[in-house]
Amino acid sequence: MSYYNKLLKNYQQISRFEHLGAICHWDAASIMPSGGSEARSEALAELSVHVHNLSCKPELADWFDKAQTEELSIEEKASLYEMRRVWKQNTVLPESLVEAKSLAGSKCEHAWRSQRRDNDWKGFEKNWAEVVNLSIEEAQIRAEETGKTPYDSMLELYEPGVSTQSLELVFGNVKNWLPSLIDEVIEKQSKDEIIKPQGKFSASMQKSLGLDIMNLLKFDFNHGRLDESVHPFCGGVPTDVRLTTRYDESDFIQSLMGTVHETGHARYEQGLPKHLAGLPVGQARSMGIHESQSLFFEMQIGRSMPFIQILSKKARSKFKREDDISFSSENFYKLYTSVEKGFIRVDADELTYPAHVILRYEIERDLINGKIKHTDVPELWNQKMQDYLGLSTSDNYTNGCMQDIHWTDGSFGYFPSYTLGAMYASQFMAAMKKTVDVNAAISSKDLSPIFTWLANNIWSKGSLLNTNELVKEATGETLNPEYFKSHLKNRYL
Amino acid sequence: MSYYNKLLKNYQQISRFEHLGAICHWDAASIMPSGGSEARSEALAELSVHVHNLSCKPELADWFDKAQTEELSIEEKASLYEMRRVWKQNTVLPESLVEAKSLAGSKCEHAWRSQRRDNDWKGFEKNWAEVVNLSIEEAQIRAEETGKTPYDSMLELYEPGVSTQSLELVFGNVKNWLPSLIDEVIEKQSKDEIIKPQGKFSASMQKSLGLDIMNLLKFDFNHGRLDESVHPFCGGVPTDVRLTTRYDESDFIQSLMGTVHETGHARYEQGLPKHLAGLPVGQARSMGIHESQSLFFEMQIGRSMPFIQILSKKARSKFKREDDISFSSENFYKLYTSVEKGFIRVDADELTYPAHVILRYEIERDLINGKIKHTDVPELWNQKMQDYLGLSTSDNYTNGCMQDIHWTDGSFGYFPSYTLGAMYASQFMAAMKKTVDVNAAISSKDLSPIFTWLANNIWSKGSLLNTNELVKEATGETLNPEYFKSHLKNRYL
Repeated sequence: MSYYNKLLKNYQQISRFEHLGAICHWDAASIMPSGGSEARSEALAELSVHVHNLSCKPELADWFDKAQTEELSIEEKASLYEMRRVWKQNTVLPESLVEAKSLAGSKCEHAWRSQRRDNDWKGFEKNWAEVVNLSIEEAQIRAEETGKTPYDSMLELYEPGVSTQSLELVFGNVKNWLPSLIDEVIEKQSKDEIIKPQGKFSASMQKSLGLDIMNLLKFDFNHGRLDESVHPFCGGVPTDVRLTTRYDESDFIQSLMGTVHETGHARYEQGLPKHLAGLPVGQARSMGIHESQSLFFEMQIGRSMPFIQILSKKARSKFKREDDISFSSENFYKLYTSVEKGFIRVDADELTYPAHVILRYEIERDLINGKIKHTDVPELWNQKMQDYLGLSTSDNYTNGCMQDIHWTDGSFGYFPSYTLGAMYASQFMAAMKKTVDVNAAISSKDLSPIFTWLANNIWSKGSLLNTNELVKEATGETLNPEYFKSHLKNRYL
Repeated sequence: MSYYNKLLKNYQQISRFEHLGAICHWDAASIMPSGGSEARSEALAELSVHVHNLSCKPELADWFDKAQTEELSIEEKASLYEMRRVWKQNTVLPESLVEAKSLAGSKCEHAWRSQRRDNDWKGFEKNWAEVVNLSIEEAQIRAEETGKTPYDSMLELYEPGVSTQSLELVFGNVKNWLPSLIDEVIEKQSKDEIIKPQGKFSASMQKSLGLDIMNLLKFDFNHGRLDESVHPFCGGVPTDVRLTTRYDESDFIQSLMGTVHETGHARYEQGLPKHLAGLPVGQARSMGIHESQSLFFEMQIGRSMPFIQILSKKARSKFKREDDISFSSENFYKLYTSVEKGFIRVDADELTYPAHVILRYEIERDLINGKIKHTDVPELWNQKMQDYLGLSTSDNYTNGCMQDIHWTDGSFGYFPSYTLGAMYASQFMAAMKKTVDVNAAISSKDLSPIFTWLANNIWSKGSLLNTNELVKEATGETLNPEYFKSHLKNRYL
């Protein structure tokens, strides 16, 4: 057996174990009775150790060296490259650091749940110091390996190929026009009258509506399911995607669009190249590209007027509100595009969201590169919230720098993906519109031309191309923030 | 670390992987979309190989030898004994034989699905010859190891400690009185008028009724769920038992009692000793004892008059049939205790079921011990069906020797467990009645005294005792078929 094939076998084996983990994780988050939790956690931890061992087994170094000298097709070369990239990321850190960070992260995250509620920065800061220090140590080791800056080496984990340099360009661009655009839009919307639909919207009817919309979006129910969980997510495996949502019986509006968002993630997974299943090169390109698909569904398709007209019509009929003015497509459109400055990222609308992300990016970049100390974070947070959204978080840690889970376990480098995703989505839409009459497709309720474009240009590529190549092949140019700006201006002004 | 502790660690690790397998198996059988099947099978096969490797790793032989010389408590000795017993069973066969049998079994079982439908003995017999030969080879190797006869060595896999000698005694006893008792009961019941409830019984109402009954039977929903599957079963893990059923909207009677049966299996699992979780000694004793618990629930509790009165009352109210005479407890009792001679084991009632099992036992015993050839089976089957139930299966393979899945993959030695379970259940009930007013407990709808007895005498024992010890400690004597006989006579005459 060639060394390349030995590697294939190893990664396919890993993928099979990860399959079992993904299903059991989904089960634990959605349907498992609470008494099953302890034994499940132990079983999943045991699996993680096993997958880690398979990912780091000593013979891999030799196999990679030898496979590199074997005769391989272009696709095999890309596959080898991805296997090696993942392997390097997994093996570059000493076990002791991985363990120390994992322990410090668990401790910090666990305590954070009550500390955040209690606005207890002093308590949090003590645990977090260790997480930050270990993350810096990690970033420095990765930097030595990659030849990049520490923070750029962390970015690599979530968004390979994206650097601080490129982020400065695109986020710098956004920072120039976003705060004033937000003010302008809020001023414009201040005259709008928005009516929140009132009443009880049963979970079963909401589910039925969600299933209708998933069918419209061509979610493949032969390879996936819709269920419920406290925190909606898209889990499972490409052959069996487990999408979850939650229902608030007093408000179906947010949950419905949440389902549209998760369906974007799901269709990307379902559309990954089948002949590369189980290999790193057959997986989704990056966090940012994954988010670009969910945001394409949620923001580009889901908040377009023709789509909202469909939502409005379906919701009217499902909830028997034919004459309810709050169900009109005009009102739905206002509900879904209302802009408001707020403290909380996860509650933010499309327009203010990038401000939350850029703030976090700038702070974590300087933190990981050692330019600021972790104790500087609250004041910097307050200052940037004032600059970007005109809000003060002075002494308000709960709604300030302690609001997100990401930093508690040291996932530095993750935040930029959200806004990169939004920008990619805008650029994909602009490119798609050159050949596809998107609004006509939505209005006709046959969205296939849209999905064919995404399947051909994004989903079927897996990780064969790097992000820059993928975006360039799909749109003719690398990431250009102008598309995002135009999209926002068109929608909100 | 002591060698005993090394062994503990290994078996707890195995148990964690088996946890993931159990949940993913349940998922595949109950809620997985069909398109997920291929990748799931591959993932589960990969897991099986891994579990097999952990169960057979070469260092275990040494660890077992050394652990045997360590100072251990009585419970630890029992635990070591069970680990070793399972290990021996797993390692005694050469890999080549395991693989050959697995392949031959899969091939035979797969073809059987259509061959049975087509009454194609000639086709079946060709594949089955190989399965029988490999099973004999397996039994001979196991016999050499255990010093027992080949068939007794196969019995050991399902019912450790039970031998042909003991089966001859108990099954021989049953054979003496069963055929005439069946005739007598059928004659007696010939005057009965039984009315099948008519109408549509919605799956959701049946589920609600099933949940009520599971609550009455104190199924712990903090450690388990009820779902649906084509073939009802009790899966999952002791901390999270996954019970399934199926609903026929034209007949709720059978499904309801099926839920009672599976709840018996479930409560045994939920009641296993928590401090021994993950170890062989903490698992259910045997197939026969497992079946004794499901049959205790189904036959001893479930078909008792006070329980049927509860079922009748709940069903009347659930389906709004207060005045429907077919819902009377008298009619329910007749429905649940009606006796009929039939060809098919899985459709058989409590009274005729043992005849089906004894027939299979006698045939498989002689087959594995080399006293008959596999080509002799149809004629023997026909002859015994005539003797025990007065039915001819001449040229009727579909409803004769080709009806069960068990032999297609070589699970010889399994069948006796069903009737042993029924007999243990009768004996447990007789013993329980010495200290518990069972009928009063059922009538009061507080069945705790019954469950406390089962928990103390059976569930909490795991595999600390062998079957004979377990039965003797619980009832004061080893298996005695007279209890089964009295139970059947009391109920049916």
